Amino acid sequence: MIRLSHLFVRTLRDDPADAEVPSHRLLIRAGYIRRAAPGGYTWLPLGWRVLRNVERVVREEMDAIGAQEVHFPALLPRDVYETTNRWTEYGDNLFRLKDRKGADYLLGPTHEEMFTLLVKDLYSSYKDLPVSLYQIQTKYRDEARPRAGLLRGREFLMKDSYSFDINDEGLTKSYNDHRDAYERIFSRLGLPYVIVKAMSGAMGGSMSEEFLAPIEVGEDTFVRCSQCDYSANTEAVTTATPPAETNPYPDTTNVDTPSTPTIASLVDFLNTHHKRPDRAWTGEDTLKNVVLSVRQPDGTTEVLVIGVPGNREVDLKRIEAQLSPAEVEPLDEANFAKHPALIRGYIGPQILGERSNTGIRYLVDPSVVPGSAWVTGANIPNTHSLNVVNSRDFTPDGTIEAVEVTAGDPCPLCSSPLEIARGIEIGHVFQLGKKYADKLGLTVLDQNGKQVVVTMGSYGIGVSRAVASIAETFHDELGLKWPRAIAPADVHVVITGKPGDEISVAAEKLCAEFEAAGLEVLVDDRSGVSPGVKFKDAELIGVPTIVVVGKSLAEGNVEVRDRHAGTNQPVALLQAVSHVVELARTGK
Amino acid sequence: MIRLSHLFVRTLRDDPADAEVPSHRLLIRAGYIRRAAPGGYTWLPLGWRVLRNVERVVREEMDAIGAQEVHFPALLPRDVYETTNRWTEYGDNLFRLKDRKGADYLLGPTHEEMFTLLVKDLYSSYKDLPVSLYQIQTKYRDEARPRAGLLRGREFLMKDSYSFDINDEGLTKSYNDHRDAYERIFSRLGLPYVIVKAMSGAMGGSMSEEFLAPIEVGEDTFVRCSQCDYSANTEAVTTATPPAETNPYPDTTNVDTPSTPTIASLVDFLNTHHKRPDRAWTGEDTLKNVVLSVRQPDGTTEVLVIGVPGNREVDLKRIEAQLSPAEVEPLDEANFAKHPALIRGYIGPQILGERSNTGIRYLVDPSVVPGSAWVTGANIPNTHSLNVVNSRDFTPDGTIEAVEVTAGDPCPLCSSPLEIARGIEIGHVFQLGKKYADKLGLTVLDQNGKQVVVTMGSYGIGVSRAVASIAETFHDELGLKWPRAIAPADVHVVITGKPGDEISVAAEKLCAEFEAAGLEVLVDDRSGVSPGVKFKDAELIGVPTIVVVGKSLAEGNVEVRDRHAGTNQPVALLQAVSHVVELARTGK
Repeated sequence: MIRLSHLFVRTLRDDPADAEVPSHRLLIRAGYIRRAAPGGYTWLPLGWRVLRNVERVVREEMDAIGAQEVHFPALLPRDVYETTNRWTEYGDNLFRLKDRKGADYLLGPTHEEMFTLLVKDLYSSYKDLPVSLYQIQTKYRDEARPRAGLLRGREFLMKDSYSFDINDEGLTKSYNDHRDAYERIFSRLGLPYVIVKAMSGAMGGSMSEEFLAPIEVGEDTFVRCSQCDYSANTEAVTTATPPAETNPYPDTTNVDTPSTPTIASLVDFLNTHHKRPDRAWTGEDTLKNVVLSVRQPDGTTEVLVIGVPGNREVDLKRIEAQLSPAEVEPLDEANFAKHPALIRGYIGPQILGERSNTGIRYLVDPSVVPGSAWVTGANIPNTHSLNVVNSRDFTPDGTIEAVEVTAGDPCPLCSSPLEIARGIEIGHVFQLGKKYADKLGLTVLDQNGKQVVVTMGSYGIGVSRAVASIAETFHDELGLKWPRAIAPADVHVVITGKPGDEISVAAEKLCAEFEAAGLEVLVDDRSGVSPGVKFKDAELIGVPTIVVVGKSLAEGNVEVRDRHAGTNQPVALLQAVSHVVELARTGK
Repeated sequence: MIRLSHLFVRTLRDDPADAEVPSHRLLIRAGYIRRAAPGGYTWLPLGWRVLRNVERVVREEMDAIGAQEVHFPALLPRDVYETTNRWTEYGDNLFRLKDRKGADYLLGPTHEEMFTLLVKDLYSSYKDLPVSLYQIQTKYRDEARPRAGLLRGREFLMKDSYSFDINDEGLTKSYNDHRDAYERIFSRLGLPYVIVKAMSGAMGGSMSEEFLAPIEVGEDTFVRCSQCDYSANTEAVTTATPPAETNPYPDTTNVDTPSTPTIASLVDFLNTHHKRPDRAWTGEDTLKNVVLSVRQPDGTTEVLVIGVPGNREVDLKRIEAQLSPAEVEPLDEANFAKHPALIRGYIGPQILGERSNTGIRYLVDPSVVPGSAWVTGANIPNTHSLNVVNSRDFTPDGTIEAVEVTAGDPCPLCSSPLEIARGIEIGHVFQLGKKYADKLGLTVLDQNGKQVVVTMGSYGIGVSRAVASIAETFHDELGLKWPRAIAPADVHVVITGKPGDEISVAAEKLCAEFEAAGLEVLVDDRSGVSPGVKFKDAELIGVPTIVVVGKSLAEGNVEVRDRHAGTNQPVALLQAVSHVVELARTGK
């Protein structure tokens, strides 16, 4: 039994100054967590209960698919991460440190390398496979901007698992087992989720899906088709590539285009002074060239120009996802000056491409197909070129998904309009393939006595982040509303009487009966605290069932409040235990 | 049910090269842990089970005394540890790092500061106290020489708790509650322990006791009285100070003492050339002066001379414990040269002391009482002085417990001979007092509306170290022998048959019945592994009860082996479940 008279907690009436999102505000106000460091939180007793409930659900479902729990150190030697180049690729996101002898260490952000080496250490035959291993462990990432409380911290609890198989069929099965387990986990946690296609990011590998909780304050944008079941992280959305054009276009002509700093003004100018015979010019006819600086983790930088239709915005996050682990930003003034061929506002692809004179790398959006003609900069101040044709007048070095996906864009599967939504990543399943096994030499003998490289999957769930996501999903202006599976207690008993009076005696007896019936009881037995304050705290703390023992005891009743539905119901004291047990059993 | 056919484990027949102590060797060989980094170990599934069993016992007993579980980050900002000077005092033992913005962090070795600030953050009145909080958390210490596997690692699991009280009576009660809980914990774990008086070390504070597991390979030396119940860490042993001497001694005389490099040769020389009238000279009559360099955590060093009777050895560890957080080492040649007054081999206290001409600090063992006369160096080469009297011919700056405690030394309580033993620290209870609350401003309003400083205790248990200590205590040349409370399973079933044969079918049925009876079952269902190997693995893994299903099945029997007693017993198959349930129930 948890007694509020004794519990280490202080509820706050006011929002903490630094809390931007509801989950953060309410978890602090209700006494679940306290900030201890930038991006680091202390779990108070109530929060710790919720976190351990989530952990238990995760553990049970991982065990159910035959995954086995292990536990690695968080402080890891550099050399292993050097082998896979992640020591460098992680860039500033990695916490690095030296020991007293000057040897390099890192705080593990994920453990692919360590798991790979562990399996290599113990296993040597196809008979040993498949095996799936997992840990529930504190992870570290030096986030540039830790924010939103537990949603994006620098120290957080994760379940990470890794599967090891002899072949692709095995990997597919391990992947699907994890995917199914994740569906069960989030269902049990009561946390709504969407499964979206994802990029592989810094991990390498092939098939990859994210579990997103659809939350307005989430940092991830994803699309879903309004008709079919396609959904993807925006970074991973693929554009259906139109066929190449085969109709010939007239030769390129240059036109004076003074005072056309924007695509809109350019289109206006053309429609006034250089009318098309067939129809009006639109932004879609123009090719916008964006100059970027691409920084590799080892510090080297490269200038990259990306061409997209003038009516679309460039999405740096999508570009970065495809160039990962490199980081991308618009080229700054000083570096622009180093490339005099690039005339700001009038850049055209005629001078771009690795095989051009400038040698500047040039990538285009997939919609810029070979044979298509564009209005674009003439690389001369105040001048644009018409009929600049891809593969005739310029040669891109490749394509890249670069434009911002917007609502109404066609679904790559069925061409119906896409919808845009926001969410937070709560899980990730990922077919790593042989990348790590290759680099670290994890092979086993197959049935024919031949060494084969093992194929791997990696699978993560943000355990502490799940707590915040649930809080973000289930709350109102009064406070939290925990799903029953992870609530810090099954029932929150509010005693409105004073210690020793009839109400308190009856309430204490009821609490003992609840407990005897196997319920976890949180009881507000504080003296000197008004019923009003107790009600407010009960709503803030958010246990799904609140039982008030008060005046209605005179009629032999207690009041049962449903925190989710917001309803009150008188229940006979004698029936209270069976009533609440039934609520807990049915998960209501 | 844990199936060895599936379990992620490989037992090793040979000892790992780097394993010095039995627990380390056997935990690796039996597949409980693997080395992952210097002083960092990965818990494999079997080890993880044992660790979590220990954790569960610790948690239950902490909850039982009303302590409440919280959880802090391990990555902590420097400023808090700066306030208490521990950022500096911890010296090289602290892992320090910088984040991407260059801010200083540390990996928490203990969390006194954080707990103090948390209570300050939430509580403000005497009515809130007492409160005890704890966490079970991964800790970091940059040990100079990580060794002995889990016994001295750099990343390890600890339960640390902290009590907060309004006054000394409260602190005494909290301290005793923890001490009692620790006794219950170690009893439940089946781990023999000794409670010894301890020094406060880098923590500050007053009353302090250690729980030591009496293990030959332990790093701590402790004494216990052969008669009374006195016991103490050698650092904390106090010497009964003899009364000052009042009989006058003759004036100091210098004597030539060529070729007397050792105390023994000096005593011989005196007994030959300068006989005492009353009795022979002994080492006890001489005063040996040891020159040390004392390095403070901030890097400043000081020369310190310590005088002890010539028949005793100096114990640098004891000296260091008393000068903590400073570190101590013998003064090296180069620094000796900077103090020409110190004539090596002939140093006498006549020129020492802060108020002497040299100004060199001089401390003496408590047995060097005021009024006592000594043979000591004359500060002239090849010359000693006789009748050098404390407080007449020299003035120490104080006393220090400096001599190595040896078996037979008198007990400070009852003067009976002390015994010396070795052990490993598995727990520590400690009255911190007001040190941290003072520095960090943790005050509450008392009953009279006055701000009073809170008084604290800190209490630690090495959770991962307990696993190793238990392994160190319970093993033989064949393998581990777990106490039942923390064994990875209740029963280890060895199936000597092949899958599908009569023996296997009966064994699988028995396993299912064991499980239905609430037992955790580890079953060796591997095919293609000989019974001999299975028996060896069962002994190595060390589950307390081993049930062999084999040939004796023909007579309706299984064989029940007691791993601790080393006995075998045929038991009727039909009685096997009730028999093993009874063993588990009675803890045998």
